[in-house]
Amino acid sequence: MAKLNENYLNLKESYLFSEIAHRVDKYISIHPDTKIIRLGIGDVTLPIGSTMIDALHEGVDAMTSSSTFKGYGPERGYDFVRNSIVEYYKRNGVSIEADEIFISDGAKSDTGNITDLFDKDNIVMVPDPVYPVYVDTNTMDGRNIIYIDANADNQFLPMPDSNVHADIIYLCSPNNPTGATYNKEQLKTWVDYALANNSIILFDAAYEAFITDEALPRSIFSIDGAKKCAIEFCSLSKTAGFTGIRCGYTIVPKALTVTASTGALMSLNAMWNRRQSTKFNGVSYIVQKGAAAAFSEKGMQQSRQNIKYYQENAKIIANCLAKKNVRFFGGVNSPYIWFECPNEMESWAFFDYLLENVQVVGTPGAGFGKNGQNFFRLTSFGNRENTIEAMERIENLL
Amino acid sequence: MAKLNENYLNLKESYLFSEIAHRVDKYISIHPDTKIIRLGIGDVTLPIGSTMIDALHEGVDAMTSSSTFKGYGPERGYDFVRNSIVEYYKRNGVSIEADEIFISDGAKSDTGNITDLFDKDNIVMVPDPVYPVYVDTNTMDGRNIIYIDANADNQFLPMPDSNVHADIIYLCSPNNPTGATYNKEQLKTWVDYALANNSIILFDAAYEAFITDEALPRSIFSIDGAKKCAIEFCSLSKTAGFTGIRCGYTIVPKALTVTASTGALMSLNAMWNRRQSTKFNGVSYIVQKGAAAAFSEKGMQQSRQNIKYYQENAKIIANCLAKKNVRFFGGVNSPYIWFECPNEMESWAFFDYLLENVQVVGTPGAGFGKNGQNFFRLTSFGNRENTIEAMERIENLL
Repeated sequence: MAKLNENYLNLKESYLFSEIAHRVDKYISIHPDTKIIRLGIGDVTLPIGSTMIDALHEGVDAMTSSSTFKGYGPERGYDFVRNSIVEYYKRNGVSIEADEIFISDGAKSDTGNITDLFDKDNIVMVPDPVYPVYVDTNTMDGRNIIYIDANADNQFLPMPDSNVHADIIYLCSPNNPTGATYNKEQLKTWVDYALANNSIILFDAAYEAFITDEALPRSIFSIDGAKKCAIEFCSLSKTAGFTGIRCGYTIVPKALTVTASTGALMSLNAMWNRRQSTKFNGVSYIVQKGAAAAFSEKGMQQSRQNIKYYQENAKIIANCLAKKNVRFFGGVNSPYIWFECPNEMESWAFFDYLLENVQVVGTPGAGFGKNGQNFFRLTSFGNRENTIEAMERIENLL
Repeated sequence: MAKLNENYLNLKESYLFSEIAHRVDKYISIHPDTKIIRLGIGDVTLPIGSTMIDALHEGVDAMTSSSTFKGYGPERGYDFVRNSIVEYYKRNGVSIEADEIFISDGAKSDTGNITDLFDKDNIVMVPDPVYPVYVDTNTMDGRNIIYIDANADNQFLPMPDSNVHADIIYLCSPNNPTGATYNKEQLKTWVDYALANNSIILFDAAYEAFITDEALPRSIFSIDGAKKCAIEFCSLSKTAGFTGIRCGYTIVPKALTVTASTGALMSLNAMWNRRQSTKFNGVSYIVQKGAAAAFSEKGMQQSRQNIKYYQENAKIIANCLAKKNVRFFGGVNSPYIWFECPNEMESWAFFDYLLENVQVVGTPGAGFGKNGQNFFRLTSFGNRENTIEAMERIENLL
């Protein structure tokens, strides 16, 4: 008899966004004429720049003639994209090599699939609150997860405890959902901990393009020693508005090795390459054309205009909260604003309170873990007019 | 210390296509002026039809304005693509529902990732010769693999042995690499075996569009009972020339359930949905626009022209082999021609023989398993002129 992976029975129902949708739908059915403003989901809304659009059209046009037609590409991505990422990192002061880069359809796929490379028997450390994918993918494999508290006391930037051992550590900076961003010294402490514990850091840099403070690290590979203990995930979703176009990348340094129980030296770069060549067939050529354009200086310039627009939204949200003396995190080097619910309200109660009184939809912090119980996330990805209106409504309410 | 997945140490070096490339490169370095004709890799070469091209451009254009912009889509694919697949199956006489369909970036990803749903402790049955992905992905998970012989005696269409039990069975029809295609009676025998053994059939239908004999099943779901024991994988790679555009789909019937050791009834449709929502973020909107167009009657008509072109190539190859009394399989309902190497030659020796004497590159059957040792695969995906020239050269040689 076929035996299924019964670890799936241990998954918690992924109810956050469906529960939000359910409550909003219910409200609308009773109040069909109200204007609801949604600042909940972390999805971009602005059209993408002409440099990327032109390149995408070129990619399509290549498919119209035998002489330019593209069939199967390299599983790890075309050289022209990987080289453009090398250049992009170089401009940010980080040196990586093209054969350390793997192009994929998105950071979610890679942060999920990377678990294939690890034994079941590893202690996995994740911060709480956390992006649910880290927890769910390890639960699917039956791994032990330990949590470290991210809270207002540590500015939502938890640091390692030398008495607590972890084999695999998830870090996300700028953080989803809190917007908190590690500085170089803090990241160096994590790298030193990982090196001392022979652990591996899985570093999610999906929001790096929102960093404005030049002193803050945009890549873990700007930290000495990180190439011996870290894998970095990133994506064009937030960098260039590719949430619907789908392109991400993962950097697995060639220096990252682990000695197996047999004594064999195993390279994670070689393993990921084997994993991807076996279970993946590369990203659409059309999308890769768009991605390479996004990494060009001109493409980046256009995308930065969009990011500035979102950052201005973040400021509008932050100003309102500051005016009302609400304690908040993020919003400066991140598209997310994470704030304490007023009057010690629980986050789902505050969700209902906002929906019913001012028809603004956000994301209850409880959906990201117990430390989010009294917090609430708003995103800056809405349009300007709606963001202003939402914050005026909230300002009047609080 | 982080512990890696040491099953990777049991993977055989995936040397088939790299060894081919190595031998060809070596030959070229010595004979730089010869014209080499490649009929080795199973990749399409013809441009795709205007219906798909127009839809892809429309998909790109949607990204240029806020009002039409598409961000994150549904992980399992847009309704407009899934509904078009329902219609496509209906035209082929098979009834499936839209929520049984999951759109992905390709059948390789899905046939690889589906292993996530199964316990390590399953007996996996694969035919030999075989598409290497089935073997490698299960080796990565540490599962026991048993082989069933596909050979000239059974027309490369092995049937189940009631004395041999398997929990998971891989079938590929039309077959890669042999081109052999099961009829309905044979598939029914497999479905009955699976139902009797509570096993699950993973059915790879990637080449279904090459079936010309209307009596042959294009989907396992044309067989009674299959919805209780089978998952089907398919793709637009060969159907519509999407090898570089990347789009596939997997059908997981809602009737497919397994009782867990806890007594809980587990739905594979629900599990795959959970797996995909957690580790995947949907296919590019642009690509999905192209995919929906490919399933339209007009798109299908255009793609069928390409398939006819490849089928004509297959005939040219088959005619030459028939004239030379070489025993071959496939080529009629499949883009692959699988033939016995003349004079009992071993397949790598025959590879060298063809390369050195007539500069034609094919794929040695040994790369697909021990039963391919004396066989050789040619594909019909080349252009007409080269296919004719290659077969003239081979005809003169043999």
